[in-house]
Amino acid sequence: MTLLIDSLLDELVTRALAEDLAGGDLTTEATIAEGERAVGRAVAHSHLVVAGGDVFARAFWGVDRGLRVERLKADGARVEPGEVLFTVEGSARSILFGERTALNFIQRLSGVATLTRRYVDALPEGSRTRIADTRKTTPGLRALERHAVRAGGGFNHRNDLGSAVLIKDNHIVAAGGIRPAVERARAYAPHTTRVEIEVETLSGLAQALAAGADVILLDNFEDAELEQAVTLAQGRAVLEVSGGVTLERIAGLGALGIDVISVGALTHSAPAADIGLDLVALE
Amino acid sequence: MTLLIDSLLDELVTRALAEDLAGGDLTTEATIAEGERAVGRAVAHSHLVVAGGDVFARAFWGVDRGLRVERLKADGARVEPGEVLFTVEGSARSILFGERTALNFIQRLSGVATLTRRYVDALPEGSRTRIADTRKTTPGLRALERHAVRAGGGFNHRNDLGSAVLIKDNHIVAAGGIRPAVERARAYAPHTTRVEIEVETLSGLAQALAAGADVILLDNFEDAELEQAVTLAQGRAVLEVSGGVTLERIAGLGALGIDVISVGALTHSAPAADIGLDLVALE
Amino acid sequence: MTLLIDSLLDELVTRALAEDLAGGDLTTEATIAEGERAVGRAVAHSHLVVAGGDVFARAFWGVDRGLRVERLKADGARVEPGEVLFTVEGSARSILFGERTALNFIQRLSGVATLTRRYVDALPEGSRTRIADTRKTTPGLRALERHAVRAGGGFNHRNDLGSAVLIKDNHIVAAGGIRPAVERARAYAPHTTRVEIEVETLSGLAQALAAGADVILLDNFEDAELEQAVTLAQGRAVLEVSGGVTLERIAGLGALGIDVISVGALTHSAPAADIGLDLVALE
Amino acid sequence: MTLLIDSLLDELVTRALAEDLAGGDLTTEATIAEGERAVGRAVAHSHLVVAGGDVFARAFWGVDRGLRVERLKADGARVEPGEVLFTVEGSARSILFGERTALNFIQRLSGVATLTRRYVDALPEGSRTRIADTRKTTPGLRALERHAVRAGGGFNHRNDLGSAVLIKDNHIVAAGGIRPAVERARAYAPHTTRVEIEVETLSGLAQALAAGADVILLDNFEDAELEQAVTLAQGRAVLEVSGGVTLERIAGLGALGIDVISVGALTHSAPAADIGLDLVALE
Amino acid sequence: MTLLIDSLLDELVTRALAEDLAGGDLTTEATIAEGERAVGRAVAHSHLVVAGGDVFARAFWGVDRGLRVERLKADGARVEPGEVLFTVEGSARSILFGERTALNFIQRLSGVATLTRRYVDALPEGSRTRIADTRKTTPGLRALERHAVRAGGGFNHRNDLGSAVLIKDNHIVAAGGIRPAVERARAYAPHTTRVEIEVETLSGLAQALAAGADVILLDNFEDAELEQAVTLAQGRAVLEVSGGVTLERIAGLGALGIDVISVGALTHSAPAADIGLDLVALE
Amino acid sequence: MTLLIDSLLDELVTRALAEDLAGGDLTTEATIAEGERAVGRAVAHSHLVVAGGDVFARAFWGVDRGLRVERLKADGARVEPGEVLFTVEGSARSILFGERTALNFIQRLSGVATLTRRYVDALPEGSRTRIADTRKTTPGLRALERHAVRAGGGFNHRNDLGSAVLIKDNHIVAAGGIRPAVERARAYAPHTTRVEIEVETLSGLAQALAAGADVILLDNFEDAELEQAVTLAQGRAVLEVSGGVTLERIAGLGALGIDVISVGALTHSAPAADIGLDLVALE
Repeated sequence: MTLLIDSLLDELVTRALAEDLAGGDLTTEATIAEGERAVGRAVAHSHLVVAGGDVFARAFWGVDRGLRVERLKADGARVEPGEVLFTVEGSARSILFGERTALNFIQRLSGVATLTRRYVDALPEGSRTRIADTRKTTPGLRALERHAVRAGGGFNHRNDLGSAVLIKDNHIVAAGGIRPAVERARAYAPHTTRVEIEVETLSGLAQALAAGADVILLDNFEDAELEQAVTLAQGRAVLEVSGGVTLERIAGLGALGIDVISVGALTHSAPAADIGLDLVALE
Repeated sequence: MTLLIDSLLDELVTRALAEDLAGGDLTTEATIAEGERAVGRAVAHSHLVVAGGDVFARAFWGVDRGLRVERLKADGARVEPGEVLFTVEGSARSILFGERTALNFIQRLSGVATLTRRYVDALPEGSRTRIADTRKTTPGLRALERHAVRAGGGFNHRNDLGSAVLIKDNHIVAAGGIRPAVERARAYAPHTTRVEIEVETLSGLAQALAAGADVILLDNFEDAELEQAVTLAQGRAVLEVSGGVTLERIAGLGALGIDVISVGALTHSAPAADIGLDLVALE
Repeated sequence: MTLLIDSLLDELVTRALAEDLAGGDLTTEATIAEGERAVGRAVAHSHLVVAGGDVFARAFWGVDRGLRVERLKADGARVEPGEVLFTVEGSARSILFGERTALNFIQRLSGVATLTRRYVDALPEGSRTRIADTRKTTPGLRALERHAVRAGGGFNHRNDLGSAVLIKDNHIVAAGGIRPAVERARAYAPHTTRVEIEVETLSGLAQALAAGADVILLDNFEDAELEQAVTLAQGRAVLEVSGGVTLERIAGLGALGIDVISVGALTHSAPAADIGLDLVALE
Repeated sequence: MTLLIDSLLDELVTRALAEDLAGGDLTTEATIAEGERAVGRAVAHSHLVVAGGDVFARAFWGVDRGLRVERLKADGARVEPGEVLFTVEGSARSILFGERTALNFIQRLSGVATLTRRYVDALPEGSRTRIADTRKTTPGLRALERHAVRAGGGFNHRNDLGSAVLIKDNHIVAAGGIRPAVERARAYAPHTTRVEIEVETLSGLAQALAAGADVILLDNFEDAELEQAVTLAQGRAVLEVSGGVTLERIAGLGALGIDVISVGALTHSAPAADIGLDLVALE
Repeated sequence: MTLLIDSLLDELVTRALAEDLAGGDLTTEATIAEGERAVGRAVAHSHLVVAGGDVFARAFWGVDRGLRVERLKADGARVEPGEVLFTVEGSARSILFGERTALNFIQRLSGVATLTRRYVDALPEGSRTRIADTRKTTPGLRALERHAVRAGGGFNHRNDLGSAVLIKDNHIVAAGGIRPAVERARAYAPHTTRVEIEVETLSGLAQALAAGADVILLDNFEDAELEQAVTLAQGRAVLEVSGGVTLERIAGLGALGIDVISVGALTHSAPAADIGLDLVALE
Repeated sequence: MTLLIDSLLDELVTRALAEDLAGGDLTTEATIAEGERAVGRAVAHSHLVVAGGDVFARAFWGVDRGLRVERLKADGARVEPGEVLFTVEGSARSILFGERTALNFIQRLSGVATLTRRYVDALPEGSRTRIADTRKTTPGLRALERHAVRAGGGFNHRNDLGSAVLIKDNHIVAAGGIRPAVERARAYAPHTTRVEIEVETLSGLAQALAAGADVILLDNFEDAELEQAVTLAQGRAVLEVSGGVTLERIAGLGALGIDVISVGALTHSAPAADIGLDLVALE
């Protein structure tokens, strides 16, 4: 499980640090002497799944390359309230300069991982259905949030508009129907890419299957229709469910034989995980 | 109410567009002809408060300067499900290229505004208490989220570590107590800045008042203690409440005479507002 | 056929202009008066296929928004020596400032398109084999070069390491064989992505087919082996040929029923197309 | 011989890595365990001249600062097929993440160095004529390509429009002739800069010499005219030949007493050098 | 006293190095062998106050991470002509590549610190008046110059337009008077921010006091008026003097009981401090 | 006379605006209504030479593309106190947002132009000596400051370390003397570049002339030595004087027949020109 390579993480971190520290830190500069050393402990204040240890560390290194960060919990670990996730040791000033930025990253990413884990855990035992994310990510943080989804046991959908085909309503209309839309996409897209199409009815599904779509997104289907859809498809295409999927519906959906359930909320509506930094001065 | 100046918005938008479009849009390129024109309507699917109209427009302009964006609802407007917020008109390809990025911005920002509005509306009639944000913002999006808080009727806390003093636990310990911490901060900070200090007990409050703090943050106080705090302070300092503040507590807190309630959740845990883009081809 | 959205093109152009113009243009500043106006004509000096009209125009606009660029030949057009591709009209100084940068872009991209067209034209009449590019692109110019390949009648391979699976030698060894490698990739990758694997022998091909690979890259196969490979595969997987593919072999390869021939040279070794800018002063 | 300073190389590398890795590496993440270690050997597959060792190393460091890169062949070295240029040791994942980007740089730059060396070697024994590059470089890679030209035994022309004067056709017309053009340039340009002018005839050469040009570019002269030009100039100006220069003409041109032959093809049409990375797992 | 965090300094340094070194260093490359080592000593050539040691060091590290920089004089130190401020040791080439950029930073920042120190030293013994900077800083260098002002014994004014309120002429007119302007600002700005207003007469001061302004800027007051102003204010507001403040007036102004004197010249008109780099080759 | 091309100016402006406006403008947002319109007049408050009109305009356009900027005084114009340089018209908010940044640019650049003009005007009537700048420019602003020097009637020295050779003390020592240093530089540098060398004695000058240096920098020569130097050189090399050059010495130096006097102070110690913006509301 990877996050992002060093140089790309550093770009994100630099921008985030600039928001908080371009004008310095009046309080810390005024009250903490330059030579002071301390150790900080990032502690979970609720049940959560960790994600973002790499970016947490690099946020501190963007402030001061001399800080030592230790990761006690790997990304993907389930953590109880009170458990220590990471420690940071070095200049007390530097730790305070970087604290908020590092926490803002780790709280958001662990929030995404924790919510994803709830969806994944709601699947019935032995279900082979995937919980997947969408492109409804926070502008600027897509790579990090996709990583967090994986840390929570979820799967990624296509990364961007250039990495796979997903034919929607407007594309179908413009192409003159489901079959020509699938054919045009197949003729245009890289041979490494599956062709997915979104349908809203069982009849749409039948057409999409006939057109040879590899993946079919069943938009806003009810449970009964989904059962029929699985029967109809007979494994000829990967079936994805999306739209109106709440945590409560997951157990039921996971039993229907659907391949993928994609959930925008994993990234666009996950509440932040509650994580704080306890600082102790070192003499 | 301002958002961000043009050149700074464009930087944010360019980065966000790069995430989704650096490799093109396979589907749209395959199915929509270059000359096609369309009009898109951004429609609310739930009750919400709008925020981010500027960045919504610029996301489309980052794709194609020739798109025409019309804003039917100003930032801060309360909107019913079904109401149209904005229209975009021009190349059908360009609208589809920019759709997801523009929506990702407007959904997040309107989500923040909508949640803020719920907190503000929960204050008792006539209350002079402010609902304020914190520095717990999404890395890279602070300026936008602070704007969204204002659009929802809330207020901003300090922008960053360099724009105001907020003395916390570790600063107090390092400085040798509340009084020396306040004095050092006053001696160091710009004369345009108030000095705020965080206390956890009524005795801490008394010391902070004696030290001449301008603003006092009462951390995790219970309601009864807060009443005593207001009595004790007698208007000599601005009182801010933070920590463990839920929507349910707002009505009660708003009646106590507290000046400010700061709520991290406004920016770190607001669910996205539900907004979609309906596209109609123009012949 | 798209190139890149406006804001991403402008970033590339700004960097390229900075290389040539950060210190001004001594010669033009010394000899051309500020008010002079001129028209430039970009003329082909050899047979070529045009690619990059968008970036050609934006290179001039990065110098001076007031320049008027007219595109007489669309990307993908075949052009004879002497034909005019584009005209630029406005300040003579501005045209000279931007000339070299604009030409450097259009010559390289048209070079890629022209070479691709030669490979595509070498396919036998009616062949359904695709000529595709690889990730062997110029650092920083991938999106532009992929566009140029399409302008020349070629197809794109996966855009980057995150948009599709391509299992190579080292991955197979690490995973413990072809089957486990394919299975792990299938289990990990987005459901929108095909799984491709590279094999070097017919026995490898048989294993890859048995493992259910969607696409199989036949690395350095000779023509006789390729015939056997097509027979063996029976359409159960997309077959891609790569390695040691010269222009001379294309006619033969294109008759074998292979789906894709990928050619690194399209982007890493295409000679620049010969295009010049003739400038005429306007009184 | 220098390449670029560390901080500027890192910027180029970060952009190039972003193209390939912003969405992760599906295949490697799926098949290679995080703890695996390996050593990679960059091997020449043809006769070539090495260029770009610095950027090759930094491409891997942009992925992972913990990789150890050893340079066995310095820039400028002539290498036989099968020889090892560099080794990279560390995390197997990190090496695979960076492989393509590092190779894309080194193949292009070694291609430029190798082609330059062929031109330089084609000069007759003892010739004092320089083979020089032009400003026809790949957008974004000028500094690297100029370095590669030097690694191949060539020389650099002016770096950009601000570092030296080169008066061409349009400048002469605008200035009202060769003499006024040279005078205006001399009066305007820094005193550290020579004044070069392009002429197309022997009579133009005579005028340029009379005007006191320091360097005269003889554009598209035939061999006989060049002999006359050398006689005419009598060392009063540096003579540069450009236009229509093929590898075949170099031997002849190099015997004429010309000072400089500038060749756009060195940078705009050099085929990539064939270099691969062999990876061996370390247990 | 902090300067800037590592990652933000590196961005500034990279841009500055690009200006001087994007095209290499012809002279040093030609004359200094790659293996040569040297030590450089930054020496004061006049009386000065040091500022910018961090950025001086990072300028060299942006060239070559292997250079060793030692700081003999901390920021804020007063230095005699001939004293050594810093030493740099390592590759002779690298030191020469970075020399000018490092000196350009340290000379400017030490110039600001030195001028500030002259203003501060001009205050009468025991004066509690602050010498403060303004927003009239060099574009791109604000954080560094504010640091330099502190190194010289001065204080900072607000960092930017978002960190504190300062109501000027046009704001007052638009708001309909001093009182409504103060009230609107109070109602809008963060509760952590003081409200400052600029007045030009004693009657304006009286109104500003009545309106409850926290800080009052007395613009272009003469000494006699300032005395009256202090009497009038009776400590109810912080008083700042600005406009027409020369070094000669400081002694007098510092005796009046004014809280702050802000001086644009500290950053917009400070002459560079005279510092050179003496280089000695190491065998 | 050019400044910088549009896209490079915009980068500089965006960074400068970010320093002042990333957190908004509390005061203007609070007091000026969104619809208000105004006109601002940039007025000289002292005798000055204008420089930077382009960047002044673009600073406002970076805030708001809708502002209309009119340039009443071209760069290089001499202006009396009270004269209007530029007008800006449009949204009152936008003008106030951009005011400080635009002024910071124009004040600094006009300061450089004004100081340069004083040096140039100090030359004796008819003197052919150039006043030139150095590389001692403000980090990040080199191109703008070099333009300002030209606006003031001065000339530019080499732009950067890659655009011309200037051999100094350490280079001479490393190369083994003046002759080998000049030879190595000549052998390495582009043929478009002159070779300059710095000498400190008349004997050094003699050696430099013998070695064929094109330009010789006479470092810290006294007037009598300079006379001898001119006699010695007999026009065989361009002579440049540098070091210890004050405004008072210019008249004398300008009569000696020296070609160039380079003055670091033009860019590193020019006081800002006094320019203000008067704003008038439009009803």
